[in-house]
Amino acid sequence: MDGFIGEFFGTMILIMLGAGTGAGFNLNKAYAKGANWTFVCLSWGMAVAMGVYVAGSLGSMGHLNPAVTIGFACFGFFPWSQVLPYLAGQFLGAFVGAALVIIQFFPHFKATPDEASGNQVGIFATRPAIKSPLFNFISELFATFAFIFILLNLGNFTQGLKPFIVGFLIFVIGTGLGTTTGFAINPARDWGPRLAYTILPVPNKGSAYWGYAWVPMLGPLAGGILAAAIQFALKG
Amino acid sequence: MDGFIGEFFGTMILIMLGAGTGAGFNLNKAYAKGANWTFVCLSWGMAVAMGVYVAGSLGSMGHLNPAVTIGFACFGFFPWSQVLPYLAGQFLGAFVGAALVIIQFFPHFKATPDEASGNQVGIFATRPAIKSPLFNFISELFATFAFIFILLNLGNFTQGLKPFIVGFLIFVIGTGLGTTTGFAINPARDWGPRLAYTILPVPNKGSAYWGYAWVPMLGPLAGGILAAAIQFALKG
Amino acid sequence: MDGFIGEFFGTMILIMLGAGTGAGFNLNKAYAKGANWTFVCLSWGMAVAMGVYVAGSLGSMGHLNPAVTIGFACFGFFPWSQVLPYLAGQFLGAFVGAALVIIQFFPHFKATPDEASGNQVGIFATRPAIKSPLFNFISELFATFAFIFILLNLGNFTQGLKPFIVGFLIFVIGTGLGTTTGFAINPARDWGPRLAYTILPVPNKGSAYWGYAWVPMLGPLAGGILAAAIQFALKG
Amino acid sequence: MDGFIGEFFGTMILIMLGAGTGAGFNLNKAYAKGANWTFVCLSWGMAVAMGVYVAGSLGSMGHLNPAVTIGFACFGFFPWSQVLPYLAGQFLGAFVGAALVIIQFFPHFKATPDEASGNQVGIFATRPAIKSPLFNFISELFATFAFIFILLNLGNFTQGLKPFIVGFLIFVIGTGLGTTTGFAINPARDWGPRLAYTILPVPNKGSAYWGYAWVPMLGPLAGGILAAAIQFALKG
Repeated sequence: MDGFIGEFFGTMILIMLGAGTGAGFNLNKAYAKGANWTFVCLSWGMAVAMGVYVAGSLGSMGHLNPAVTIGFACFGFFPWSQVLPYLAGQFLGAFVGAALVIIQFFPHFKATPDEASGNQVGIFATRPAIKSPLFNFISELFATFAFIFILLNLGNFTQGLKPFIVGFLIFVIGTGLGTTTGFAINPARDWGPRLAYTILPVPNKGSAYWGYAWVPMLGPLAGGILAAAIQFALKG
Repeated sequence: MDGFIGEFFGTMILIMLGAGTGAGFNLNKAYAKGANWTFVCLSWGMAVAMGVYVAGSLGSMGHLNPAVTIGFACFGFFPWSQVLPYLAGQFLGAFVGAALVIIQFFPHFKATPDEASGNQVGIFATRPAIKSPLFNFISELFATFAFIFILLNLGNFTQGLKPFIVGFLIFVIGTGLGTTTGFAINPARDWGPRLAYTILPVPNKGSAYWGYAWVPMLGPLAGGILAAAIQFALKG
Repeated sequence: MDGFIGEFFGTMILIMLGAGTGAGFNLNKAYAKGANWTFVCLSWGMAVAMGVYVAGSLGSMGHLNPAVTIGFACFGFFPWSQVLPYLAGQFLGAFVGAALVIIQFFPHFKATPDEASGNQVGIFATRPAIKSPLFNFISELFATFAFIFILLNLGNFTQGLKPFIVGFLIFVIGTGLGTTTGFAINPARDWGPRLAYTILPVPNKGSAYWGYAWVPMLGPLAGGILAAAIQFALKG
Repeated sequence: MDGFIGEFFGTMILIMLGAGTGAGFNLNKAYAKGANWTFVCLSWGMAVAMGVYVAGSLGSMGHLNPAVTIGFACFGFFPWSQVLPYLAGQFLGAFVGAALVIIQFFPHFKATPDEASGNQVGIFATRPAIKSPLFNFISELFATFAFIFILLNLGNFTQGLKPFIVGFLIFVIGTGLGTTTGFAINPARDWGPRLAYTILPVPNKGSAYWGYAWVPMLGPLAGGILAAAIQFALKG
């Protein structure tokens, strides 16, 4: 139960701050309108850092990400018995976080014509810079592999100042390997807000592009499993 | 008495550096004129971090913020007997910090025509990007809730390197949830400098917009109480 | 063997993230296209930090750089017997990291006409802002001297949060002394990816400028040896 | 003697990286040409952090700044017997660091017409945004007061990760209170490089503006003494 609570509130905080970043960047009249990629990556990084602090304090391992939970479980770094409550907390927390962002930025959504949803959906979910199913999948796989392989070599990442380092890890994954697909690297971070955008009454709403959603689901899972496999081979 | 002293000097430092950031960003000929939102949020974040170091070293708990003090007191995280000296130190320190910024930037205020006070008041106090009493209140409530809920899960935040992490927490509250109302998230940070701007002889002065001031007072208080209530329910 | 493994994976991660930064900055349609020098230096800095974490966790000393390994060895800060496996891991890891970036950004290379290779080669290897063999060599010597002299005074840089500080050390070497030649400061970081760019099938490929490559090889080695010599004289 | 050595090398590193930042920002064809104030402040901040690490490791207290040394000495935070070797190391180190930057960026100085020295002198020494002897002095006094008052409340700032926090302290002094005079806050940081610019053969050299140099000498000294006096009154 602590696992569910921690993952729920941690992921809720992550998505409040992360989708809020996207809203402040994309919506008309918001004070960060048109900010740059450094802004996006540093803000998402700190969103994750704060989510990990909250989750760790409330009793979970601070995964906030099914690719971490499942990748770890596949190679004995996490017990399978805890996987379901973790995943439930992650997807539910991401959905609630996105809903809160829709409420807070409601007047800004009203002030932003959608133009074929190019910008609005990007607040909630990822889209590739160049459409290519194969290379988009490879991008998410590579970025998530690097993320989780480094995470496994950081030591206990919910303790002390390590969540802060995890935040800068997210930053550099975004700056280094996130410029092709927008670095979902986390199925809950993509699907939870994408679902919220789909079913909640967002003004000027456009398509939620579910046709692309298999990439930020399967790419991160494959990357997480690969990272855990290599770590298992190296350090057992 | 240590509580008053610590909060006074800590909040004075916070507002010297924070309102100084606003002055360097808004006033003509200042070297950061026209800087971006990343600059604003990182600088305010580090202003808070340094204020917390000073306050903690001089004997207070480093709140610097009535929403923290009152929210904590409502649920037993802080003794009511200390609330008044803390609040007095916070509002007085914020006023003095703003006065020092007016002195330092006096030639720059003279060089900046006010244009209906749009920019000048923003150095000292917050204004919404889109006027809407309901959603502006919700914005401050949500941003302060996230801020104080995370703060409660950081552990003892005046010790070691934690004040630095608090600085990055402020950064991400600003980038993630601060782009609608300018993230007061602190009644003393807004009312102290707003009062200084009102009564001190600032060149080219415009309106201090007191009609909006109830939002950065009541929104943060509501958010702080909500955060402490949820934390109390979760961890008792 | 641990030394080779740690240096291989650490340098692979460093170059995946670092060359990926260059790709996101230079290639058409990438989300960081045209980002600024702060972005470049902070991202390369964190790339190094994460590489040091990985290398340290997998059993090496986290050099990731022949100028560190050889400079240290010359003055007794590192055993000569370990130099060869370290160098092998560094160059091989850099090559593999660059190859992975070529795969991930393949559609973006296709979308970017080379224009005499001015931009593409810069993703993988360094080029001077003003061509001058003498001053380019001096630049790399000075920048690497500062880098390694500071590194020697940081204490054990693979432990705790020190790899993160190393990341900010790289950042400030880049902002302070890297604006003349693009701060190779590491022969493996320059030659490994330059070789990958030369022999792998990169779309729209231009010259790899091997005529300049002696500078990022010899300048860093000279700077590393000088730093270690002065440190040896001061602290023996 | 350790005090002299530590202050010499620490301040040399500080000015190599700091004046190098100014060169990369102001000189034609340098890769950071035209970068923003965030770049300037973060880079100077990290330059100080690395200088403190070097100085602390080589045996000094990591002042790197006569305003710190003299302010501390006036109120018993530092022995007067050590003041002279500290000051000698600081001014000499700053001069040598600036000379190295002149060598490294020689071709870039040649490529940069001086235009009445507006830009070139700013690489080495500070100039006010608006000329006003009274308010320029107040600016340096306020900024240095805030800097050294916070420094005195950080605890032992050469240990562990504290030099890194000092770096972010410099950053926020620059962003918050440095936009009026360019935050010398350190007589050695201003006079050492100003002297190097005056007497060394810099291509396209303009005036070194010694007429203003009393401000970055006396303002920081006054601010440092005030900060130490208040700290002494509060914590004795």
